[in-house]
Amino acid sequence: MFRLSRVSPARIFHSSIKRPVSGRRAASTSLAKFQWEDPLDLESLLTEDEIAIRDTARQYCQEKLMPRVLQGWRTEEFNHDVIPEMGALGLLGPTISGYGCAGASNVAYGLIAREIERVDSGYRSTASVQSSLVMHPINEFGTEAQKEKYLPRLAKGEIIGAFGLTEPNHGSDPAGMETTAEEVDGGFIIKGSKTWISNAPVADVFVVWANCKWDNKIRGFLLDKGLKGLTAPAIKNKLALRASLTGSIFMDSVKVAHDALLPKTRGLGSAFSCLNSARYGISWGVMGALEDCVHRTRAYALERHQFKRPLASFQLVQKKLVEAQTEVTLGLLASLQVGRLKDQGKLAPEMVSLVKKNNCGKALQHARIVLDILGGNACADEYHVGRHVANLQVTNTYEGTNDIHALILGKAMTGIPAFAN
Amino acid sequence: MFRLSRVSPARIFHSSIKRPVSGRRAASTSLAKFQWEDPLDLESLLTEDEIAIRDTARQYCQEKLMPRVLQGWRTEEFNHDVIPEMGALGLLGPTISGYGCAGASNVAYGLIAREIERVDSGYRSTASVQSSLVMHPINEFGTEAQKEKYLPRLAKGEIIGAFGLTEPNHGSDPAGMETTAEEVDGGFIIKGSKTWISNAPVADVFVVWANCKWDNKIRGFLLDKGLKGLTAPAIKNKLALRASLTGSIFMDSVKVAHDALLPKTRGLGSAFSCLNSARYGISWGVMGALEDCVHRTRAYALERHQFKRPLASFQLVQKKLVEAQTEVTLGLLASLQVGRLKDQGKLAPEMVSLVKKNNCGKALQHARIVLDILGGNACADEYHVGRHVANLQVTNTYEGTNDIHALILGKAMTGIPAFAN
Amino acid sequence: MFRLSRVSPARIFHSSIKRPVSGRRAASTSLAKFQWEDPLDLESLLTEDEIAIRDTARQYCQEKLMPRVLQGWRTEEFNHDVIPEMGALGLLGPTISGYGCAGASNVAYGLIAREIERVDSGYRSTASVQSSLVMHPINEFGTEAQKEKYLPRLAKGEIIGAFGLTEPNHGSDPAGMETTAEEVDGGFIIKGSKTWISNAPVADVFVVWANCKWDNKIRGFLLDKGLKGLTAPAIKNKLALRASLTGSIFMDSVKVAHDALLPKTRGLGSAFSCLNSARYGISWGVMGALEDCVHRTRAYALERHQFKRPLASFQLVQKKLVEAQTEVTLGLLASLQVGRLKDQGKLAPEMVSLVKKNNCGKALQHARIVLDILGGNACADEYHVGRHVANLQVTNTYEGTNDIHALILGKAMTGIPAFAN
Amino acid sequence: MFRLSRVSPARIFHSSIKRPVSGRRAASTSLAKFQWEDPLDLESLLTEDEIAIRDTARQYCQEKLMPRVLQGWRTEEFNHDVIPEMGALGLLGPTISGYGCAGASNVAYGLIAREIERVDSGYRSTASVQSSLVMHPINEFGTEAQKEKYLPRLAKGEIIGAFGLTEPNHGSDPAGMETTAEEVDGGFIIKGSKTWISNAPVADVFVVWANCKWDNKIRGFLLDKGLKGLTAPAIKNKLALRASLTGSIFMDSVKVAHDALLPKTRGLGSAFSCLNSARYGISWGVMGALEDCVHRTRAYALERHQFKRPLASFQLVQKKLVEAQTEVTLGLLASLQVGRLKDQGKLAPEMVSLVKKNNCGKALQHARIVLDILGGNACADEYHVGRHVANLQVTNTYEGTNDIHALILGKAMTGIPAFAN
Repeated sequence: MFRLSRVSPARIFHSSIKRPVSGRRAASTSLAKFQWEDPLDLESLLTEDEIAIRDTARQYCQEKLMPRVLQGWRTEEFNHDVIPEMGALGLLGPTISGYGCAGASNVAYGLIAREIERVDSGYRSTASVQSSLVMHPINEFGTEAQKEKYLPRLAKGEIIGAFGLTEPNHGSDPAGMETTAEEVDGGFIIKGSKTWISNAPVADVFVVWANCKWDNKIRGFLLDKGLKGLTAPAIKNKLALRASLTGSIFMDSVKVAHDALLPKTRGLGSAFSCLNSARYGISWGVMGALEDCVHRTRAYALERHQFKRPLASFQLVQKKLVEAQTEVTLGLLASLQVGRLKDQGKLAPEMVSLVKKNNCGKALQHARIVLDILGGNACADEYHVGRHVANLQVTNTYEGTNDIHALILGKAMTGIPAFAN
Repeated sequence: MFRLSRVSPARIFHSSIKRPVSGRRAASTSLAKFQWEDPLDLESLLTEDEIAIRDTARQYCQEKLMPRVLQGWRTEEFNHDVIPEMGALGLLGPTISGYGCAGASNVAYGLIAREIERVDSGYRSTASVQSSLVMHPINEFGTEAQKEKYLPRLAKGEIIGAFGLTEPNHGSDPAGMETTAEEVDGGFIIKGSKTWISNAPVADVFVVWANCKWDNKIRGFLLDKGLKGLTAPAIKNKLALRASLTGSIFMDSVKVAHDALLPKTRGLGSAFSCLNSARYGISWGVMGALEDCVHRTRAYALERHQFKRPLASFQLVQKKLVEAQTEVTLGLLASLQVGRLKDQGKLAPEMVSLVKKNNCGKALQHARIVLDILGGNACADEYHVGRHVANLQVTNTYEGTNDIHALILGKAMTGIPAFAN
Repeated sequence: MFRLSRVSPARIFHSSIKRPVSGRRAASTSLAKFQWEDPLDLESLLTEDEIAIRDTARQYCQEKLMPRVLQGWRTEEFNHDVIPEMGALGLLGPTISGYGCAGASNVAYGLIAREIERVDSGYRSTASVQSSLVMHPINEFGTEAQKEKYLPRLAKGEIIGAFGLTEPNHGSDPAGMETTAEEVDGGFIIKGSKTWISNAPVADVFVVWANCKWDNKIRGFLLDKGLKGLTAPAIKNKLALRASLTGSIFMDSVKVAHDALLPKTRGLGSAFSCLNSARYGISWGVMGALEDCVHRTRAYALERHQFKRPLASFQLVQKKLVEAQTEVTLGLLASLQVGRLKDQGKLAPEMVSLVKKNNCGKALQHARIVLDILGGNACADEYHVGRHVANLQVTNTYEGTNDIHALILGKAMTGIPAFAN
Repeated sequence: MFRLSRVSPARIFHSSIKRPVSGRRAASTSLAKFQWEDPLDLESLLTEDEIAIRDTARQYCQEKLMPRVLQGWRTEEFNHDVIPEMGALGLLGPTISGYGCAGASNVAYGLIAREIERVDSGYRSTASVQSSLVMHPINEFGTEAQKEKYLPRLAKGEIIGAFGLTEPNHGSDPAGMETTAEEVDGGFIIKGSKTWISNAPVADVFVVWANCKWDNKIRGFLLDKGLKGLTAPAIKNKLALRASLTGSIFMDSVKVAHDALLPKTRGLGSAFSCLNSARYGISWGVMGALEDCVHRTRAYALERHQFKRPLASFQLVQKKLVEAQTEVTLGLLASLQVGRLKDQGKLAPEMVSLVKKNNCGKALQHARIVLDILGGNACADEYHVGRHVANLQVTNTYEGTNDIHALILGKAMTGIPAFAN
């Protein structure tokens, strides 16, 4: 591609983690130096382990993922190295103890999501599905045999998982599920279809949710790739998340053995437990994406001159940058608190709705605002911010749209469900 | 592509123009039936000729452009039939009298832009450049010989034009132009480069602006494709306007004869005259794009059910649709008034800034809002709204960013230029 | 009061109407000078009569109302001269033909509302009630005797009217009305109460709506002050509209004769006809209030210096002014079109919802934004903008809240009523 | 006042502090019950001492201030009991150690501000001035004699202080200060005027900032009421903060002894240290005001029925409540973190700009949004929310407007000051 302007598009490299200088922890009347990348010193609230995991993730993402993302975006081709590489670093299922998983805190999990999504929401989606929507339910609702069969290989990234809940006609209200499981001699017959399923076209194992005909309850099943009647074609020509794969799952009377059932799943609540874990991770991830937008547009605004002055000297530009970075700061603090409460067993699902809704909504809103700083270059994918903007529209919608989370919280505040209003 | 849901994506066809029923023009105490597609009866303010031109444009756009747009978007390939087809219908340079042009009103020109952009901002950009940025300056600033040489062929779409003003380092402040023209024996030498030039890679003729070394004034020149030293490579991997071509223009000491000069061009003001004509057209066009978003998401909301009710029955969805359609209504009325004043010779350039800024900003804002109605399907290009959203970000930026037009109007309101603040 | 700063608060006097200079109507290629006070030359769309009426209203409002408004606001005292003065100038019931009324266009009516509300929404409310909610229903639904008895005196401002529809427990859904009319020997007995009734405490005649027990239909009645059982105490300590009076109406078995019935009223639709007339006027009025905010804050920004430069030179200030004035321009054009359609008998009630919702919402939003330009002086009532802001919150709520009009339009767009959602 | 509707206006009493139930601290897989009043369990981050101080403040504010606020608002009369009552409870200068002060944490100080402003921003302003703008500079920059003379009496509320920095022509840029101090035999002569000074009309001691003629540096002086040439008239007819007093300070060659100088003040930085302390408190306070708006409008929405359903069941209403409460949650977490860093000596002034700007801006924005839930009753001061809205406009402006804090942060992010742009 020809050089569009003297401001090069790809100058941001988030490899150096700034440590608070030692003098910062001085006596009570002293003042600290403001660090705009971390305005309220989130760093001081992390453990050393969390910082180490974050640094590992950041280095990997910037060195290995960042150079690949444009290719993935342009071609919608899946890079098969990514999942094993993440596995090798312990970034998959990191909160699980045992089975080759890291047993890290939920905050560490959030920090990983933030680093991956700093590169691309698609890569983060791939990882979120593996960790929160596949490994989590196997660990939470599976038998010991299921755990031993699947978790170590999923942790290493040897196999990839997908999560089949959403159906073509049931997005926001999964209770309307049409997929069924029927008990037959030697196992179950699963019939139905799922859509907008991340990872599906390359998945080796599917956590599929179905309405069990014998008692009309929803349960999860583990379906291995290659089962007769099971297909998972890709959805192409996506406008966003092009670096990750999305597909449908068609189950044309797929026969599975009894041990395919995740026995501890109990209704939709079990599926929601997975979604809550994923949504929590998203709330961190999107802040990473917005941070990348802020860093890139700030650098651009400092380098690009118009009217003989850097764009960064214009009031209208400063306001855009400042308000975006403020929302990063607020959103990260909130997700941190949710993570700490999760680690303490004090999580309420509505807390996740709050940070998922807020962080996704604010990330989208402010990524769009700072995008305008790029002027005509906003349209060039080499500047990356436009890609984040496209991705963030999806993150604001999937795993509960912004409006649905508003209504979940509205019900919590008023006691009145207004979903069908 | 597999069916994503029972709501089919491509059901909007804007072919039937609803005429006001005759009873609508009844006596003074009577009430009219509200027509949501035209809430304040803009139709009643158009002439019969304008309506006829609009209907021709709409039929062509829906029947010929709409079926091609996804292919163009996905591949970034230019469809060479489009410009000649538009030419055959009289849609190019329609306000020019003579030279095979239609001699229609500026309102008619706006209505054409609206119909084209109802399909895609990229197609409209292609046509805007031809009409406002190439045919207009030749007609306004050219010699009779230049007019006779170029206008009839441009009007028929036999040749395509491009407009070279923006430079890599001068977007919002073209006064910083670095391209130069030097008078030499037998003509001029043009040196410099231009970027983000619509139509450039396929253009047969370029209206290029250069700083004339002999008196330090900016003038326009007509450069024919094939001149030695003139190249116009495409910019690929755009995130928007993918159905139209964009490129750079490199002029490596291009020699042209004296008759390449547009003799009546007088400084940057002449270039701005072209931009004002284009911006006026954009103000109509983006309203067409937003209308398409409203029509599509409304249809979707009526057909798609969640919680056993159509999405269209939800308060949060109705509010989105209503506020988008309100802005369509306001924006079109304002552009109509600007067009009428333009026809009457009463146009002030700041009026164009007002409608360009407002209509582009509102189109983008509300297209983004209604996009969310599509839920997960927002991400599928077959639903078209996401494509409009990506395009509208560019229309809000090119030909004067939203902020720059704010500052143009700010200067008009306060007398104080604040561009460099 | 002590001088707060060198920028005096009360410098805006809208007395001089700028006429387009004659050269402005020149030949087709000429350009006009931009007039920021009327960016899209609304003036050129008005008739000479309308301009004359507007000028009369403006002069009166600026010379007679403006000097009184602070006193009225501070004390919540009603100025009894206002209504007779307006009557003397023909500003009351101006669209009615005969009975001493002006027979002017609906556009003229809108222009009057705009001029009055340029001073204060409270004064405009007083006039709106008299014209749209009292004189209009008498003219539309009354007997010839009722018209002759009331209209001439109301037109002159000798008597004041009030309109009783809203009840304590029925704001947005008047269909829930609890006030009843029972036919008895010699007339009717009216029982019930109304609240948030403009003009009530000083009204000589009340248009009261009641559910008629004999056929369960809602009809209007004319109640004269002094009837036994009729009281109309003032609501005090209002946070807005303090220059106008608001009260309740208590009807403790009020006995009226048969001729108190407005015989042509037919259900709630008749009441809505009055509200639509009033709402149409409001849509003009609030634009006047916003214009006053823009003029005052612009003048302040030009005079007030910080950091050795006028506030008006700051990008953040210019953007505020420009976007406010843009909304004024759009809103006025839309209301003009509604007025023209109304005059032609082509009005649909939803059109009024569109301009009422939009103009009130935008006036409130942008008045709040420009208020911030005043800095600390925003808090001083002598600067007037804070008063407009407080008033506009009420105009955005009364006669149909912003949300209710969204749902009215939502129903028109989708066919689905969502009021109870 | 007459009953406006069946929904009574004054039902919110924030006296009962909900403690997390013990089961909430259960094992790691358990879930907690969501508590909408404290969505992310801020409570769990407070110390027992902080909770005790908060509870004391809340009880006092709800029991003693709440019943007085309407009277204060309506009449602009200062209640002389308030300051001594606060003093008796230890709410004044609470972070100072010794001199009769509580020596509490900065978080405790923030919690006090939140409780006071839950009632009214005016009362909080009164207390902020006393604690942050008078006691703080005496403690920080005063001699031991000055501390002993003033602090114990200020702490008890026996005397009231005011802070004179802002001048009529210098709001956002105090560096332009015109007030001067000249050294003369036996002391100093202070000349100049200050405006928009909270507490001034009733202040016993004034911390006044002046430009010292001998070295052109700005220093603080302590002026006692009654000095010759010193007057502090009230500014009346304010549109907000009517429950607190505001005035000017006129210093007509006021002679003070040498011991009036605060010797450790060193330029404007010392004054800014006071402002930063106050702004930090404001960032907590405004969240309290917004919380009160949310609690009141939620209660109203649950009780008030339209279309036979509670307002709280409408999607459009739930969204308003949820987004307001979300901002409360985010803003409080951010202020808490700033407070903790302040206690640790790790505060950067820009951190205060971030929470001051964000919390004031969001409080104002969302208080306005939820105000609309009240419909017509928004206008009645008995419903309290309109009063908060008026107050919050001032808090968003004073002690650094929203725009100024954006530019302070913009400078921190870009290195480029854009104040004069």
